[in-house]
Amino acid sequence: MKINKNYANLEENYLFATIASKVKEHARANPNKKIIRLGIGDVTLPLAPVVVESLKNAALEMGHAETFRGYGEYQGYNFLRQAIVNYYEKKGVNLTTDEVFVSDGVKSDSANILDIFHKDNVVLIPNPTFPVYVDANVMDGRKIIYAHGTKDNNFLPMPDENVKVDIIYMCSPNNPTGAHYTKAQLKEWVNYAIKNQAVILFDGAYECFVTDPELPTSIFEIEGAQNCAIEFLSFSKMAGFTGTRCSFTVISKELKREETSLHHMWLRRQTTKYNGVSYIVQRGAQAALSDEGMAQIKESLAYYRQNIITISQTLDKLGVWYTGGKNAPYIWLECPGGMGSWEFFDYLLEEAGVVGTPGEGFGSEGKGYFRLSAFGNKEDTIFAMEKFTEAVEKLKK
Amino acid sequence: MKINKNYANLEENYLFATIASKVKEHARANPNKKIIRLGIGDVTLPLAPVVVESLKNAALEMGHAETFRGYGEYQGYNFLRQAIVNYYEKKGVNLTTDEVFVSDGVKSDSANILDIFHKDNVVLIPNPTFPVYVDANVMDGRKIIYAHGTKDNNFLPMPDENVKVDIIYMCSPNNPTGAHYTKAQLKEWVNYAIKNQAVILFDGAYECFVTDPELPTSIFEIEGAQNCAIEFLSFSKMAGFTGTRCSFTVISKELKREETSLHHMWLRRQTTKYNGVSYIVQRGAQAALSDEGMAQIKESLAYYRQNIITISQTLDKLGVWYTGGKNAPYIWLECPGGMGSWEFFDYLLEEAGVVGTPGEGFGSEGKGYFRLSAFGNKEDTIFAMEKFTEAVEKLKK
Repeated sequence: MKINKNYANLEENYLFATIASKVKEHARANPNKKIIRLGIGDVTLPLAPVVVESLKNAALEMGHAETFRGYGEYQGYNFLRQAIVNYYEKKGVNLTTDEVFVSDGVKSDSANILDIFHKDNVVLIPNPTFPVYVDANVMDGRKIIYAHGTKDNNFLPMPDENVKVDIIYMCSPNNPTGAHYTKAQLKEWVNYAIKNQAVILFDGAYECFVTDPELPTSIFEIEGAQNCAIEFLSFSKMAGFTGTRCSFTVISKELKREETSLHHMWLRRQTTKYNGVSYIVQRGAQAALSDEGMAQIKESLAYYRQNIITISQTLDKLGVWYTGGKNAPYIWLECPGGMGSWEFFDYLLEEAGVVGTPGEGFGSEGKGYFRLSAFGNKEDTIFAMEKFTEAVEKLKK
Repeated sequence: MKINKNYANLEENYLFATIASKVKEHARANPNKKIIRLGIGDVTLPLAPVVVESLKNAALEMGHAETFRGYGEYQGYNFLRQAIVNYYEKKGVNLTTDEVFVSDGVKSDSANILDIFHKDNVVLIPNPTFPVYVDANVMDGRKIIYAHGTKDNNFLPMPDENVKVDIIYMCSPNNPTGAHYTKAQLKEWVNYAIKNQAVILFDGAYECFVTDPELPTSIFEIEGAQNCAIEFLSFSKMAGFTGTRCSFTVISKELKREETSLHHMWLRRQTTKYNGVSYIVQRGAQAALSDEGMAQIKESLAYYRQNIITISQTLDKLGVWYTGGKNAPYIWLECPGGMGSWEFFDYLLEEAGVVGTPGEGFGSEGKGYFRLSAFGNKEDTIFAMEKFTEAVEKLKK
């Protein structure tokens, strides 16, 4: 018996555990102080009424023999896949329902998709990044090369023709930086992927925050992407489904490598190792994509967006460098006064009672950077930015 | 770019597709004939009222900010894990809540668990078997050895001391055969696993059908199993959750291989590649395990059990050899008149309008055998067994 030895190469990530223990300690020492969490990546607003109604009705359906549902369709119910196809149509992207695979999370799919690729492939991952891309590949023992995000490239690394990779992870709008590629930039990545026979794994979990009509909200808006990209989208941020769980993966039937359909391989992977999303949840997701659902969801997104405006206006006024925000729920700022990210974390907690996320938790290029998120309460975010302003102005003195 | 070439070694399984097309063809040729499906492995009775109520209430909770839930606990909500611990306590098995991992299906977990093991391990899989065990290992390129189930061993293969394996798949009560290991037999497997440092992957998805108090309903009833076994259980058959999706995996914190905790590895795998089951569904599963829920579920199980009695009494009367049934929802019979399993399928459909599952769809040892299931309608099952009797008696003439 041998275990998978690659697991020994995983780095333990104590980021959120360390944050939690620091905040707990601070709260104990300052029992009357208000602490505001702007570090979270989780939504806080309730589900839209039409979604709740749909979830409730689906639950009731399960209680009657005539409307009870057992095992569902392999790729997800057609009613939901059709709603997703319609959602893409509004982006100008034409899909067929059999190119959509419903599942429980982008995290699951963006990691499980590796199953269909050889362990010898070289993977390109941005730095900073969502840690799952790294860990899932370390578990398989794949060689990882990092695409460095820096202030110089606005944390939007571009392809390097001298570096040959096979799998490319991208997330735009980005977690953690909130940075967003333009169509022209994505076109360069698509060109690189086609030339090198690479596959782009495109995490679009934050696409719903894009307001600029010039920015792409799907890799499939880029010509040729269907021949080199797999896209992961989620209801988590769009419809507040972080605890309800529903997402989907789009693979074109045209996408082939080594003369093999990756669509067919993923179908085989999912039918073998997965049994689909709860009927109830799929009905909720369908309601989210209805006209009424989208109208209700837009209110929540507008609420979060207002928080981002509050944060970015504060940073603009203070002259703090940052990326993200305008088309993303995250703002990635350079720690004021040349501070390190943990140093700034401690300072901000102590001075302002504000909790953010130290950038180095997302990779070495995050050193000296800090993530703030839009998912808090409106009044708290305003209050937090007042305290943030005082703390940063104190530094300048 | 290289794809995972092991996928090319997967055999396409046309079992259920072939059945569907044969039935469709038969229905077209015999438009007025009643066709009864006793081949299905899916439940048909609706969810218990207390489960539906709980699902509904949880859906409503998601619509209010005060009761809304975002990302849940990594291993599943404690309220559900505690309910599972209590369920095991009634079996005489003591677990702690952190040994329970809530997930969406035994299919997912019994395949995904392979992630923590080396590709060079040798796997033992029964023949006949649930095909997922085979396919998931073929995808990884692992060497598979089969433990042959035959009429001689009552389709309950026992360990062979001359064969050294590292991973052992077991399913008891078994799908497809309905056969069930005794405690003494499981003890032999546990002894083999400990001696060989192997790990038993124990699929207990059908444990709720066990009525004989002498039979084990968990591998952890066997002394030493916590040091060599991982158990997968599901709400699918127990509570009719095939479309609602909830299951769990139990790994003792004592289970180590190569001085590494497999519990810790699985925790790392799940936190990296999985984001948990919907809060709503977890509330439904909790309700299923409540006293009221268990009382309601027992009614459904009794209904299915009555179907099994109908089938087994018919076979007893006809003198047809079979295994399973008494403590399982499946009956595995030897095709009468020395027929092959597809031959009997065609004959039974033609003569009786009854659809079963040809045994060879589950492996070479299934040739000449046939699976019938308990999940049909009561009146239909009685009618089907009358037609079955006529068809088999006709063979004797």
